[in-house]
Order: sequence, then structure tokens, then C-alpha cells
Amino acid sequence: MTPINENFGKLPGSYLFSTVAKKVAAYAAAHPEAKIIRLGIGDVTQPLVPAVIKALHAAVDEMGRAETFRGYAPDLGYSFLREAIAENDFKARGCDISSDEIFVSDGAKSDSANIQELFGADAVIAVCDPVYPVYVDSNAMAGRCGEYDTEAGRWTRVIYMPTTAENGFVPELPKETPDLIYLCSPNNPTGTALRKNELQKFVDYANEVGAVILFDAAYEAYIEEADVPHSIYECEGAKTCAIELRSFSKNAGFTGLRLGFTVVPKELVRGGASLHAMWARRHGTKFNGAPYIVQRAGLAVYTPEGKAEIREQIAAYKKNAAIIRDGLTAAGYTVFGGVNSPYLWLKTPEGMSSWEFFDWLLETVHIVGTPGSGFGPSGEGYFRLTAFGSLENSVEAMERIRKARV
Amino acid sequence: MTPINENFGKLPGSYLFSTVAKKVAAYAAAHPEAKIIRLGIGDVTQPLVPAVIKALHAAVDEMGRAETFRGYAPDLGYSFLREAIAENDFKARGCDISSDEIFVSDGAKSDSANIQELFGADAVIAVCDPVYPVYVDSNAMAGRCGEYDTEAGRWTRVIYMPTTAENGFVPELPKETPDLIYLCSPNNPTGTALRKNELQKFVDYANEVGAVILFDAAYEAYIEEADVPHSIYECEGAKTCAIELRSFSKNAGFTGLRLGFTVVPKELVRGGASLHAMWARRHGTKFNGAPYIVQRAGLAVYTPEGKAEIREQIAAYKKNAAIIRDGLTAAGYTVFGGVNSPYLWLKTPEGMSSWEFFDWLLETVHIVGTPGSGFGPSGEGYFRLTAFGSLENSVEAMERIRKARV
Repeated sequence: MTPINENFGKLPGSYLFSTVAKKVAAYAAAHPEAKIIRLGIGDVTQPLVPAVIKALHAAVDEMGRAETFRGYAPDLGYSFLREAIAENDFKARGCDISSDEIFVSDGAKSDSANIQELFGADAVIAVCDPVYPVYVDSNAMAGRCGEYDTEAGRWTRVIYMPTTAENGFVPELPKETPDLIYLCSPNNPTGTALRKNELQKFVDYANEVGAVILFDAAYEAYIEEADVPHSIYECEGAKTCAIELRSFSKNAGFTGLRLGFTVVPKELVRGGASLHAMWARRHGTKFNGAPYIVQRAGLAVYTPEGKAEIREQIAAYKKNAAIIRDGLTAAGYTVFGGVNSPYLWLKTPEGMSSWEFFDWLLETVHIVGTPGSGFGPSGEGYFRLTAFGSLENSVEAMERIRKARV
Repeated sequence: MTPINENFGKLPGSYLFSTVAKKVAAYAAAHPEAKIIRLGIGDVTQPLVPAVIKALHAAVDEMGRAETFRGYAPDLGYSFLREAIAENDFKARGCDISSDEIFVSDGAKSDSANIQELFGADAVIAVCDPVYPVYVDSNAMAGRCGEYDTEAGRWTRVIYMPTTAENGFVPELPKETPDLIYLCSPNNPTGTALRKNELQKFVDYANEVGAVILFDAAYEAYIEEADVPHSIYECEGAKTCAIELRSFSKNAGFTGLRLGFTVVPKELVRGGASLHAMWARRHGTKFNGAPYIVQRAGLAVYTPEGKAEIREQIAAYKKNAAIIRDGLTAAGYTVFGGVNSPYLWLKTPEGMSSWEFFDWLLETVHIVGTPGSGFGPSGEGYFRLTAFGSLENSVEAMERIRKARV
């Protein structure tokens, strides 16, 4: 009888956002009159900007003519896009990353789930706690996380780095030595960001112990404070210890279009092997490129029109973030994040658990958020709201919350 | 020091098509005057059909308006597409597959590489020999294939099922019992197809020994003979032993657009676990859906206009196949396939090895094909040509081959 991957059976419940979606669907079905405001999942709501729409139409037309039709894309992405990324996201910030160190993909979720394939089955991972669930779940599926302790809400073979109000949301260096360190800054879910000196400490540590940092910079477009690095390659020595994951989802609203990229520097070598060569092999063998039309849309993000339009879009989400932050504060909540990030992270009131607050918020004011405990044990007692709704909904949500204290 | 995945180091050379591409690029650079005809990689050349282009433009417009903008797609695909697939590809053929057994993805290459994650690290795979390299390489990366014996061109822990002229390209049931059986029909690379009774034998065998068949039907649109099944679910009992992989690449020219799907029947259970639930979890955790606009394009394939336009496109490729088949036969080659398939599989002449013939063909008549040995040890002495070029190129290629015998 075919042996199955027993690690799947160890995963607790279902994927966090699937559970949230099911709960909301059930509530909506039972209460069709409730006007639900969704500030839960980190999905954008503004339409794609005109420069991107124009590029998509043009690329679609190319696909409809024999002379300009494109079949399989180059394994690692079209060079027009890789060059624009290298120039705008790295060289312009003084980071020495070349276009052939950039691997275009269908999004940062896939990449952040797949990148663990490059490492040994016995590699020990360290994650911030709370954390975006994909890092841990993808490693758990590969058998790297040990067993799940339901009571503690922890895996037995994962190093958790608490990232809470107590340490100002700056994780301490782990006591046990990890092989892989997942960092996300600006962070999902806490909405906080690491300063350059704080990130540099991790880079120095990784180089010292030979660990690899998997740096998720999906939210870099929301950074406004000067001492918060947009790329880990702004830190000295990062090219010998860090892989960076990037997304077009949150900076340009590509959640439904799917585009991301991963930077694997050529200098990054472990066990005598080039991780760059390994990722190139993985990409070439198990993936067939992002759609040509979507890569063209990605290029439009880097044009002067695209940049200007996207700046406006992000400004609108950041305005929502400020409204939510101020609204929650005025309503007496303790709230973090929302400055360099589209995420707000609040302490649940009156000692409610994260899921209790989820239910209360959904049932009382018909607002959907994400329970902090879904992101890890140290997320218990916290709750995430996102600024990706409309201005009207953000304002109304705060109105409702102000009126209906727990 | 971070342990790496040592299995990557066991992979022989680079991915087959990357090697071919590099050889051709080097030849083209050295001989800029050579008019190279590419009949190597299985990539389409005709533009997307008007119904698909129209659907893409309409969906792009939707993405540009707030009221119709779509963010993250449902994990498993939009129901409009899943329902069209269930109706047209399965129910219309008498296969009892429901829309929620269909998982939409970014293509059959990703799915056929990722599907092995559901199975234990000790699962033993059986593949046809020769075979599409992704099945073996993805399992080798996961450590399931043992060691690669360079001399024999074989992995030590893979069951090879020779599929050659000697057995009429119908593999025998393996002598050792496998856990996973990869079958592709119409077959890549041999261009041959299994009859219903031949496929039924595998289904009965898998049910008997508890194995799972991974059935790749990417080329089903090319089937013209009545007794060749389009889906494995045309065979009795397949729902308890088979997963089917499908693509929009070859039937609708989506190689550069990226869309595919996998069918995992709910009745398929191994080790007490539902493979359907496991694949749903895998999809939800490690993938974020195919682009909305591409799923809309997929739906257009099932409209009356889309169906008519695509039928014409496939007819054109099949005409090429007939021209190549006839041309090779007239030139004295022994050739297989090309009837239910866009692939032609020929015996290399004069005892040349597959790579010797590759070089000869490139250097003498500037035609690119794919060496049979790249698909497995029993592919040695064979060579693959594809019908995906233009009519003019197919005709000219045969002209050149006729004039220049080895």
C-alpha cells in the first residue's frame, strides 16, 4: 500500500485563512442582513493601476499575434523584468544585486513555501513568534518541525523567537543555534519593522554561525521611516547569508495577478553547494515561469507612470492604517504597527483570547480580523487588522468599534 | 553550518531542455547565418485563439475597476472554471468527476513535480522509460530515487518500465511492486497512446496492489482513435487509484499563459488519509491560485467559439505531424507516434547515439530536436521531433532531411 507523507497528518487544523473564511461564510449565511467589513486577510481591494492595465492589454494583444506570441518563458524570468528589478529595487538603494541573482515566480507565498526544499531534512528552523504560517507549515510538511504540541500550540523542533510588546517586537537572537532563520520586515502579522542595526545583528549572527536567513520583504513599499531597511542587502555581509523574498502583491495590488521574485546571491554557499545554482535547478525542474503578460505587468510597475500611480495607491492604504490606528487608540485599545506596514496589531481587551475576540468582533460589529494566536503561541492575546479595505470601510469599522466596547 | 538537500547533488547534469537550449544558443552564436528550425521543445507557436484573447481583455478590464477587481483567488480555483472542466472534460465523456475534485493550478509541470509531496519518502516510483524528466527529477530531489548510476543512465531506486518498439510502446506491468506509477498517454516523448484495455490493465493492477497511478493527460486533445481514452476515469475503478494531471498548454496554446489542473477523486484513500484532503491542504498552504485573468481565459476554451477555434489550431499541428511522419518515412527513417500526439519518435539512423544525431541534425540541416536518451535509458537510439512548429518550417525541415541523409 502506497506510503503517504505522514507529516501532513501532524498539521494542526486547517490553514489559518481557510478557517477564518469558513467561519465568516457560516456567519454570513446565518445572518444575511449583516454588512460584514473584512479586515482579516491581507488582500488588497483597489483595482490595478492604469499603467499596469495598459501593459496587460498590450501584452494580451502580443499573445494574439503569431509574430509576437510568447510560449514558455525563460526558466528564471524574462530579463526585461529581472533587469528592472535589479535596477530599481536594489542598485537604486546601493545594494549590489545583479539581474541574474533574481528569480521571477508566481508569488512570494509559493517561494516562501518552496525555498525550504534546498535544505536538509534535519535543518532546524527559527521563526519569529507570531509569524506568517507558511514558513512553519511548509517545513512541517517536509518533516522538519517534529511533532505539534496542541496544548502549547508549538512544534517540538522549531525555535520560536518571541516578538511581542515586551521586547518591542525585536526578537532576540536564539539561544539554540538554528540552520534557517525566517525574518519578515515589515513584519506580518505585527506590523512592526526592524531598524537597520537590529537587522544587521541578525546578519552578523547568521554569518558567524553559518545559518541562512530567509528574509521576507513583501511589505517593503510601506516603509516610511528612514532607518528601516527595504532590503536585507542594505546590511553588510548579507550576500553570504541571506535569501530575500519579494512580492508584487502588496506594493502593486497583484494578489489576483500573481507575481513575485526571490533573490539568491551567487556568493551564498553552504556545504560546498551554491544555493543560487540549486534554486535555478529547482525553478527549472518544478516550475514553468510566470505568465508573459503578468511579467509585462510587473515591468509597468517600474515605469514613471506606474511608480506614481502605485505611490498613490499605497498612500491610500496607509491613510486607512492611520485611521484604524487612531480609531483603535481612541477606543482605548493598545495598538502596534501601521506605520511602516499595512498591518495593525492590537492587544485583545479584557483578557479575551484571540479567537474569542474574533467571534465577538464578527458577531457584535460584523468586522473580520485575524486571531493573533493563528500566527503562533506568542500571538495569543493579540489580533490583526489590515488597512487593505476601502477608506469608507476603515472609517465605518472604527465607528462601529468605538460604539461597541467589549 | 546549514545542511543542504544533498539529493540535488545527485541529479545528473542539468535539466534536459536547459542543455538543449544552451547547445542551440552556442551553435546559433557561432553560426549566425544558419536558419535554425526548432522542433525540439514541446512549445506551441500559434497565437492564442480570438475567444481567449477576448476573454483576457475583458478580465483585464475587470481588474482595472474597483467594482470588479479580484484579489486572491479561491485556493482551489474559481468555481466557474472548475465547473466547466467537470462538465466538458469529464461528464461529457461519462466520467463521474465533480467540480470539487478539480484543483486549478499554474500548469501541469508544477503539479506533476509537486504531487509527489503527498507520499512517503520511502515510496517507490515506477516510470515508463523513456519518460518526461520531471517525474523522476522531482522524486530524486525528494530523495526517493536512490543514487544515479551515470554509466547505466539509471537511478538505483526507480522501477523502469521499458516502452519501446519491441513492446509496441505498451509497458508491461512491473515485476517489483511500485507505490506510485507515472503514466502519460498520449505519451511524451514517444507520441504513442495506450488503448482502453491497456490502460484498464494498469488500473486493475494498481487497485490490486494498492499503488497510485499519476496519469498525465496533457496531450489528450490530440487523440483521434476511438479506443484511446481521453481520461483515466474512463476506466473502471480508476477513482480509487488514480490522480489525473491536465494542462491547457498543448490543447489551447497556454504554454506562456500557465494553466493546468489536477483531479484527485474523493474516493482515493491511502493509509487512512484522503489524498483529496491532502492536496487541498498542500494547495492552500503552498500556492496562491492561478491568476483570475488566466482562469477566465481557461473558461473561454470551453465556449462554442473557443472550442471551434482550438479545434482548428490542433488540426494545424496534426497536419504538421502527418507531414513530418510522412517526410521521415519517405527519407527512410523508422518513425512512431504523431497520430494521437504532436510528438514524432524516430529511430536514429546508422547506429548513431541520440546525442550524436542531435549534433548531426543541428550542424548539417540546422534542425533542433530532442535526444531520446535525455528521456531515460531506453530512449537511447531514439529522437523526438515535435509538430508544434509552423507548416512552412515542418515542410522545410522535411525537405532538408530528405536531401541530407546521414
